[in-house]
Amino acid sequence: MKLIDDFYALIPAGGSGSRLWPVSRKSRPKFLYDFLDSGQTLLQSTYDRLAGLAGEGHVAVGTGVKHVGPVLEQLPQLVEENIFAEPVGRDSTAVIALAAAVLARRHGDEIVIGSFAADQIIRDRHAFAGSVREAVEVARAGYVTTIGIAASRPSTAFGYIRYGHSLADEIPSAPSSYTVRQFVEKPDAQTAQAYLMTGEYRWNAGMFVMRADVLLNALAEFRPDLFARISRIADAWDTPERDSVVSQQWEGIEKIAFDYAVAEPLSERGGVAMVPGGFGWDDIGDFNSLAALLPSRTNRNLKVLGDADNVISRDSAGDIVVSETERAVALLGVDDMIVVDTDDVLLVAPRARSQEVKQMTAQIAKEGREDLL
Amino acid sequence: MKLIDDFYALIPAGGSGSRLWPVSRKSRPKFLYDFLDSGQTLLQSTYDRLAGLAGEGHVAVGTGVKHVGPVLEQLPQLVEENIFAEPVGRDSTAVIALAAAVLARRHGDEIVIGSFAADQIIRDRHAFAGSVREAVEVARAGYVTTIGIAASRPSTAFGYIRYGHSLADEIPSAPSSYTVRQFVEKPDAQTAQAYLMTGEYRWNAGMFVMRADVLLNALAEFRPDLFARISRIADAWDTPERDSVVSQQWEGIEKIAFDYAVAEPLSERGGVAMVPGGFGWDDIGDFNSLAALLPSRTNRNLKVLGDADNVISRDSAGDIVVSETERAVALLGVDDMIVVDTDDVLLVAPRARSQEVKQMTAQIAKEGREDLL
Repeated sequence: MKLIDDFYALIPAGGSGSRLWPVSRKSRPKFLYDFLDSGQTLLQSTYDRLAGLAGEGHVAVGTGVKHVGPVLEQLPQLVEENIFAEPVGRDSTAVIALAAAVLARRHGDEIVIGSFAADQIIRDRHAFAGSVREAVEVARAGYVTTIGIAASRPSTAFGYIRYGHSLADEIPSAPSSYTVRQFVEKPDAQTAQAYLMTGEYRWNAGMFVMRADVLLNALAEFRPDLFARISRIADAWDTPERDSVVSQQWEGIEKIAFDYAVAEPLSERGGVAMVPGGFGWDDIGDFNSLAALLPSRTNRNLKVLGDADNVISRDSAGDIVVSETERAVALLGVDDMIVVDTDDVLLVAPRARSQEVKQMTAQIAKEGREDLL
Repeated sequence: MKLIDDFYALIPAGGSGSRLWPVSRKSRPKFLYDFLDSGQTLLQSTYDRLAGLAGEGHVAVGTGVKHVGPVLEQLPQLVEENIFAEPVGRDSTAVIALAAAVLARRHGDEIVIGSFAADQIIRDRHAFAGSVREAVEVARAGYVTTIGIAASRPSTAFGYIRYGHSLADEIPSAPSSYTVRQFVEKPDAQTAQAYLMTGEYRWNAGMFVMRADVLLNALAEFRPDLFARISRIADAWDTPERDSVVSQQWEGIEKIAFDYAVAEPLSERGGVAMVPGGFGWDDIGDFNSLAALLPSRTNRNLKVLGDADNVISRDSAGDIVVSETERAVALLGVDDMIVVDTDDVLLVAPRARSQEVKQMTAQIAKEGREDLL
């Protein structure tokens, strides 16, 4: 597959995934885990998809300092100067801006940057590549370009993107592209259902592709303080002053998502475009959504992540077992439950309580058992 | 406390306790386990209770050959010649008869033998001692004497003993003793309830106290073949021929419970007596009955066997957790469940399914995972 020469991919690898505890831990966030038993962690899959488009040397990862080690272990092929280590989390705008500013200084203002979260599931790499190629065409034309995901259910877990007008005439090389009329936040169930009925909305997966100069100009306008701090850091990045400037500037950077800081205000003046992607996408939010992505091991809908031979079930249906140990897991008369067996923690909960695993981790922190998180 | 000189106690230590799997295993039957977190296994408690009455040298244990090692490990004070190792299980009559025959040859025909299962819970040792002392008095008078347990609920898990007439006049030293009119097998719930209403029935805990000669004469009459085989083995027991005679005779011994072989037929002619015991008794049949014996760790009736600090519960009520590992057990929104965490097996089941754990072990055997049993 032909590489896109002027394209650089950033993988922001953050987020703890506390709804997936105790699989997901502070020391091993969900992007470091192989949730589909595919032989690759979510991060490794994301890297491979993007390296196939941008080339090995054109893929960067932004992550917390404490995860740099594990990231390099999982991605030995990653060029080390393409790691953007964040001393503390400052949400997505900071890390995307930093990568854009540094890569622009290295490779020129007009390179195209694409940002793709490290923990998403994409089933069809070919269709994904096609969407990214088209998004790069739109980005070159000056748009901040997102890839809109086909909304297959009235989910309240994702934000939505509303279609504007077609850009097919303006950008002949991007026949399926549209402007974005509006970004909307996670809706309630009724609103989500209404969105689906119109056929005018797609899911926002937080994928953004844009020219570095377009992004940096938008930032300078919408978030001048953030832009100034990032610029100072970027100037020092490839010099011996990096650490001292980072330690002066980073903590003071505004913590704000890219959607709010750039995509929303820019969309109001027609500066954001969307390419509709159709490649089988999902985000593993909790054990219930994980269960939906795994194959059934029995005719009673038993889902197993790990060695299914170690799960012995009797009169049990609809369970999801995550087995990280050699231990046998025996289920007797247990329906629709989550059982997660790790070396130091065992979790049992009904699938209906999936979302509340997050509150469980908060309670555990409160009880002084941070060692388990 | 004064020892009873002519009294010898036998502890039949058998039974796999498969309803308590995976705590109870083939290699570690329930009598080898400390189910009440008391610091003593059931076997050790049973031994201590009886050694306090009979004296260290007067306590014997009958158990399967493969459990002799673990038994001696738990009871280093046990006199080794008082171990009766059974090559294969032949139910209670064989082992009681063997112990009686051997001990009679060693210490005389008129010694009193008491048989007490290794896996029962007794809360009040003083009251137990009183009942045994009274039973020994009745045994000396020539009765096969059982200790009847106060039936506190219409249990269908135990056999029942029906009162006959008082023996207070006949045996002044045993004022609360009665003859047994009838032994009845485990009843259905309705029958059990009817028994309770009459006040005429007590539970049969399988405790039997009798003179060796009385027992051996009854056996010779009711089970002549079994008696003959046991006699041959007993003659050889304390000689170099023990092993060869055991291997000739043991396998052919009839497999029959003491209740059927001796107590029932003898009771029909008035030869069996009962002393009513009131010492807080229970038999741990399954995880549900185990839960009933443990204290609550929360105001939501959480029962924990093991380190309760390792159990973190949220919105969960009525669970029983058996924790044999250092692992934390996190319960979220889980009600009335059994969670057993061992080194190699994890069991999850509703408490309502407690009895079916036995069928689960049968399925596991069928699936070729005997290593887990």
